[in-house]
Amino acid sequence: MAVFMKKQVYIVSSATVVGLEEKDGPLGEFFHECDYNDDTFGCNTWEKAESEMQRLALGKALSFAGKKDTDIEMLFAGDLLNQCIGSNYGLLDYDISYIGLYGACSTAAEGLMLAAMLCSGEIVTTCASVASSHNASAERQFRSPLEYGGQRSPTAQWTVTGAGAFVVSSDRESLFFEKNKPEYAARITAAEPGKSLDAGINDVTNMGAAMAPAAADTILRFFKETKQSAKDFDLILTGDLGYEGTVILHDLMKCEGYDISGCHNDCGLLIYDRKRQDKHAGGSGCGCSAVVLGAYILEKVRQGKYKKLLFVGTGALMSPMSLQQGLSIPGIAHLVQIESEKL
Amino acid sequence: MAVFMKKQVYIVSSATVVGLEEKDGPLGEFFHECDYNDDTFGCNTWEKAESEMQRLALGKALSFAGKKDTDIEMLFAGDLLNQCIGSNYGLLDYDISYIGLYGACSTAAEGLMLAAMLCSGEIVTTCASVASSHNASAERQFRSPLEYGGQRSPTAQWTVTGAGAFVVSSDRESLFFEKNKPEYAARITAAEPGKSLDAGINDVTNMGAAMAPAAADTILRFFKETKQSAKDFDLILTGDLGYEGTVILHDLMKCEGYDISGCHNDCGLLIYDRKRQDKHAGGSGCGCSAVVLGAYILEKVRQGKYKKLLFVGTGALMSPMSLQQGLSIPGIAHLVQIESEKL
Repeated sequence: MAVFMKKQVYIVSSATVVGLEEKDGPLGEFFHECDYNDDTFGCNTWEKAESEMQRLALGKALSFAGKKDTDIEMLFAGDLLNQCIGSNYGLLDYDISYIGLYGACSTAAEGLMLAAMLCSGEIVTTCASVASSHNASAERQFRSPLEYGGQRSPTAQWTVTGAGAFVVSSDRESLFFEKNKPEYAARITAAEPGKSLDAGINDVTNMGAAMAPAAADTILRFFKETKQSAKDFDLILTGDLGYEGTVILHDLMKCEGYDISGCHNDCGLLIYDRKRQDKHAGGSGCGCSAVVLGAYILEKVRQGKYKKLLFVGTGALMSPMSLQQGLSIPGIAHLVQIESEKL
Repeated sequence: MAVFMKKQVYIVSSATVVGLEEKDGPLGEFFHECDYNDDTFGCNTWEKAESEMQRLALGKALSFAGKKDTDIEMLFAGDLLNQCIGSNYGLLDYDISYIGLYGACSTAAEGLMLAAMLCSGEIVTTCASVASSHNASAERQFRSPLEYGGQRSPTAQWTVTGAGAFVVSSDRESLFFEKNKPEYAARITAAEPGKSLDAGINDVTNMGAAMAPAAADTILRFFKETKQSAKDFDLILTGDLGYEGTVILHDLMKCEGYDISGCHNDCGLLIYDRKRQDKHAGGSGCGCSAVVLGAYILEKVRQGKYKKLLFVGTGALMSPMSLQQGLSIPGIAHLVQIESEKL
């Protein structure tokens, strides 16, 4: 069921922290912080490094919005690690009510959606959301430690090392703090929560195929319920379908009479240079969509270059154990409609 | 920040599914379904059994409310398994937008809180929440497989095999479906989202000690913000502090000038018979508070025996890996205020 925001809800600020590979990619200049040494962020384990990225990202997002942690009423966060320890430990420093999420790689969209709904329903005025992934912590948890040097399949995606944080508020004044005089604001105007959907894919090296049906399902429901189609949007941006999933999504949409190929892009395609950086089917992970949206896309919305776009976070709801037990991979996709508002 | 519900929000129905040990406990007669054979629920792995409990619990909660899955606008769910596969797979059959949560053992309270907030904010009218744990799937993931027969420490708690599902709605009419004429309804009137709090506990066999400071923090904030104290409640019910955590909570509250010992109880204390069932420090797990609230406590609210109570879900936000890396155990506690309303 599509939800339209009854109040004006703004993404007041966004901040991103990435690893070396992401900094080296085509969007490198847009990211806000990076560990230029070794992706450890000064920590002695990859899991702690991921937590540190979340801490840094939220700190930066708060400072970009001119806010303290005590100005934020609720914090939504999640990651891919077992029991979401990236978020649990990374955000301990902040004095904010903490709502843990698990949406796999759709977490950035899930958090933005819940934040916007609670602002719209006047339950809170200002809240924040954070999502992250780290290539090294994800590889050793889901596949093999990097040291093993396993061969990757051509359909496999590369987990992004990155964290994105967003401050969301229904307080319009918060857009103009200090000398900040933006010309456009990024507004969340609607959302379509996803339904989990198992299309029977059991190839763990092809997450794009597992998530594409869920993305198509959510976008189609939103199109039909809101009587819109591809022509109404400057951009339909999926989370991390990669090259495999993107082709499948386009096909599935075409079968239902919608051609989105002209205005669709995917964060997993945008984040790495396909020729120069050998990332096979593209980027993935909670951090992928969080940092591409937070650094690059929202910047364009705030410049008025995108008037209206759909951000569709996609997630694969499996675990190594569920695959070992012979289950296939359910996908989910949460959709957030973002518009630029002339101020 | 305490949130008061602007609209009337009801827990329309609740349903619980438990294992043999729980059925054999003092609340056995109140639970709605059980696998009388072997806690497998007909599945060939413990993880699938946990999923099946979630599926059964939500099905029952829907039927108790006279609703179909398509009547439910959003579904909040979570569990303790890596990547929350108990919920991801267990709820696939239902055609409902799915919002994955990770709140460790506080998940039942987290789900009820978000469901109530979205109903109160008129974002949805009717939604549902589910939480589960399974002793055998939790033991082998967090500690050792049951077959290992490891010695348990006296402060250790016993993960409950159970799933609880709740239908939450702002539609008062939904209380009176078919021939259903309840005398009292269970209403969620306020909530206090928890803050994660690390008190430095690193004994993995003493989760009660790790969670008690978070419970005290949330209850104290709620007392102060709403100008209430123990005398305003028939019951303050924590999730799964067990015998260790309960003593610590009482002490922490006394230090701040509040004596809650007269009206406090804990789901982990209620679910097993301390003398007859050897469960050491009591019950724990997402399923513990979900089934005690869903079966026993809400029944009393619906009979008008409890006028006003606090349900405080408590969670330990760690993973086996974070402990191996030398980190201590952060706790969290989400609070929901439930009142009986004469119909």
